[in-house]
Amino acid sequence: MTTTLIRGAVILTMNAADDILEADVLIIGNRISEIGKDLKCHADRIIEAGGKVMLPGFVQTHIHLCQTLFRGRADDMELIDWLRKRIWPLEAAHNEESIYYSAMLGIGELIRSGTTTILDMETVHHTNSAFQAIEQSGIRAISGKVMMDYGTEVPLALQENTQRSLAESVELLEKWHGAANGRIEYAFCPRFVVSCTEELLIGVRDLAERYGVKIHTHASENREEIAIVEAERGMRNVVYLDHIGLAKPNLILAHSIWLDDEEKRIIKDRGVKLTHCPGSNLKLSSGIADIPDLLARGIPVGIGADGAPCNNNLDMFQEMRLTAYIQKVKHGPAVMNARSVLRMATMGGAEVLGMEDRIGSIEVGKLADLQLLDLEDFHVYPSYDADWFSRVVYAATRGDVDTVIIDGEIVMEAKAVKTIDKARVLNEADRVLRDLLTRI
Amino acid sequence: MTTTLIRGAVILTMNAADDILEADVLIIGNRISEIGKDLKCHADRIIEAGGKVMLPGFVQTHIHLCQTLFRGRADDMELIDWLRKRIWPLEAAHNEESIYYSAMLGIGELIRSGTTTILDMETVHHTNSAFQAIEQSGIRAISGKVMMDYGTEVPLALQENTQRSLAESVELLEKWHGAANGRIEYAFCPRFVVSCTEELLIGVRDLAERYGVKIHTHASENREEIAIVEAERGMRNVVYLDHIGLAKPNLILAHSIWLDDEEKRIIKDRGVKLTHCPGSNLKLSSGIADIPDLLARGIPVGIGADGAPCNNNLDMFQEMRLTAYIQKVKHGPAVMNARSVLRMATMGGAEVLGMEDRIGSIEVGKLADLQLLDLEDFHVYPSYDADWFSRVVYAATRGDVDTVIIDGEIVMEAKAVKTIDKARVLNEADRVLRDLLTRI
Repeated sequence: MTTTLIRGAVILTMNAADDILEADVLIIGNRISEIGKDLKCHADRIIEAGGKVMLPGFVQTHIHLCQTLFRGRADDMELIDWLRKRIWPLEAAHNEESIYYSAMLGIGELIRSGTTTILDMETVHHTNSAFQAIEQSGIRAISGKVMMDYGTEVPLALQENTQRSLAESVELLEKWHGAANGRIEYAFCPRFVVSCTEELLIGVRDLAERYGVKIHTHASENREEIAIVEAERGMRNVVYLDHIGLAKPNLILAHSIWLDDEEKRIIKDRGVKLTHCPGSNLKLSSGIADIPDLLARGIPVGIGADGAPCNNNLDMFQEMRLTAYIQKVKHGPAVMNARSVLRMATMGGAEVLGMEDRIGSIEVGKLADLQLLDLEDFHVYPSYDADWFSRVVYAATRGDVDTVIIDGEIVMEAKAVKTIDKARVLNEADRVLRDLLTRI
Repeated sequence: MTTTLIRGAVILTMNAADDILEADVLIIGNRISEIGKDLKCHADRIIEAGGKVMLPGFVQTHIHLCQTLFRGRADDMELIDWLRKRIWPLEAAHNEESIYYSAMLGIGELIRSGTTTILDMETVHHTNSAFQAIEQSGIRAISGKVMMDYGTEVPLALQENTQRSLAESVELLEKWHGAANGRIEYAFCPRFVVSCTEELLIGVRDLAERYGVKIHTHASENREEIAIVEAERGMRNVVYLDHIGLAKPNLILAHSIWLDDEEKRIIKDRGVKLTHCPGSNLKLSSGIADIPDLLARGIPVGIGADGAPCNNNLDMFQEMRLTAYIQKVKHGPAVMNARSVLRMATMGGAEVLGMEDRIGSIEVGKLADLQLLDLEDFHVYPSYDADWFSRVVYAATRGDVDTVIIDGEIVMEAKAVKTIDKARVLNEADRVLRDLLTRI
């Protein structure tokens, strides 16, 4: 096994005590083997990180890699229009290679800005291509094909037969769950109640139970969505999911802005997990989730950038700042301090994914998913007597990430992603988008 | 005079028609002399900008360079506490060299992220040092010493005698207004009504009139501030400023969040200008200004990052995105589209400063203040058939700025600021901060 020694960084461990150390980190294979001052050991690779800051890699718990290709093609619209008029027709026009390059473009952006693990939702078809990009790029991902067997205004190409949707999901699961030495996992991804029959949702419930995997869906993002669910199912979103038995610890709900008290109690009691997507929620005018209240109730909440066309970046630094600032203006300046936001972006995300024993902090025995920041620049100075959490959350930016390690592998070095041919992916992204637009 | 030819960029001109051209730009001395396809001319310097995007330099209409040194030292507090417990004691401990390096640090960050003109407010003392930094760095700035002759809890070192405050302002004005070939201007900077006697404000009114310069102050940022003004002056902030004759076209108010209808009418009728500071307003929990309403009334509104300790960056890309997103979540996704936000960040700022005939757009005859972006990266792709405004406002970041020209001079090239010794400024910033903290 390859051994990597990282020497002399300031480490924001994000362990239970939020310890900050200046120490060496020894990685053996894909795990953190030792943390300490002046480690004396042989290592195949040595990274001199004096003056740099080490953080756990960011964990983004709601991403749509398949939409990266549509960045800037659906601005200034509300969710339901955004889906029906733009995103669904665009997703319907995808083919294998456009899915592949959309994923590569998104993963390149994610790694470049320090994200090492994502919970991803693909579109209906060609999900194998997304998994291939995930495998080749080296990112840690839980992903799955989206499932849609119901609803008006869904393009023909995205309308699925219920049993076929379940069967295709299981095929993908059997192929990809646990692949790449466990770096890749599968999750069932019914899009949202609006586009799923009860039969599909119950099928997902049972299959997820049988295979021991997550269910990743959207809920209570938008008031029109909630009105549709109430009209068609006779109850509010989360109440309905609970009613049919989906509200369990393996359920991860993206957005969850418009939750009432009963829904919050169900989420807490059933161990459901949530994802906050501040950039997307602001830009689509969806609303602002009450994160301080959800955290105070002890509900695990991660952060995700959502898809490129509703953000328009996949950058955790931006999402962290938004997570803090939009709550401060509502609830006062002391809420959501830098430390609590960095926790959401790392360990919080790990807890949402049920991976808190494996990722989210820099501790001996955990998987080696980490980033080094180079903070020798105007916008993150002074450094004297600085609060490290403030410096990272309120001042640092994506461009400050220097090195990224995932599963023990150096996937970015000196600010260049090593596992992706950037020039080729940019060229191919333009080419496959041009072709895709002719298919709409 | 030096001639500079920039070849082949895509130019977002921000002229009245929002024209986007692929063309060459010839700069003679400090002015744009010609714009056109394949210009045939001799030039001392040629910049090959094929594939790059040219924008006007950003105009930030509310900055405190003197506070850059205090980045991260006053997080998670509300305005009045933030001032009294942190910022005023820190400002009071400044000396000449700490002011100088604070300014250099801030200007380095500003130029690096594409800002070419600022309206700046210094502290009570040592303002010469800030002007020296402005002069040496090459940035275009309107600045002035802050004026404070009234109010409780102001540290002794910041309390001024009214006449001495006016006299020192005039000394600085006579030394710096019009300096560096007109690149530097002076503005009177009474801090806010809370810290100024009526005698001081009336003195400022008359002197600004006599010298033909701007008045730069804060107003209606915070509800506690407004309550203090109402209690002490018997009327609301802007009504009071109008009552004593300050509400004129040369008055620039920062923040202006809590304006009532009468105040908005006064601002419009008197030609007063405003600055929106979304990052600061969120982080200090001040509130969200109703920008769509102010713009609909025809009031000029610029954008400013405010000071580093309440933001914590001086980055127009972040402020643009916030300007769009926090209004969308309040007023719907169609408001504040990318084009309108980029206008605020360029021509809007120029109008606030009364410099719309000189800066803010790329047009023949205007001063050569511009930036080139390199958008060959994952987070700003695809480029095919892209909306340039969306790409720049919703996706680009500070790290994408490659070249900055101010007043015809290349102040940044290949992402490195040429006019500031970065390593030295970072070192000195830490040193002078350490010394400053011992003086509190």
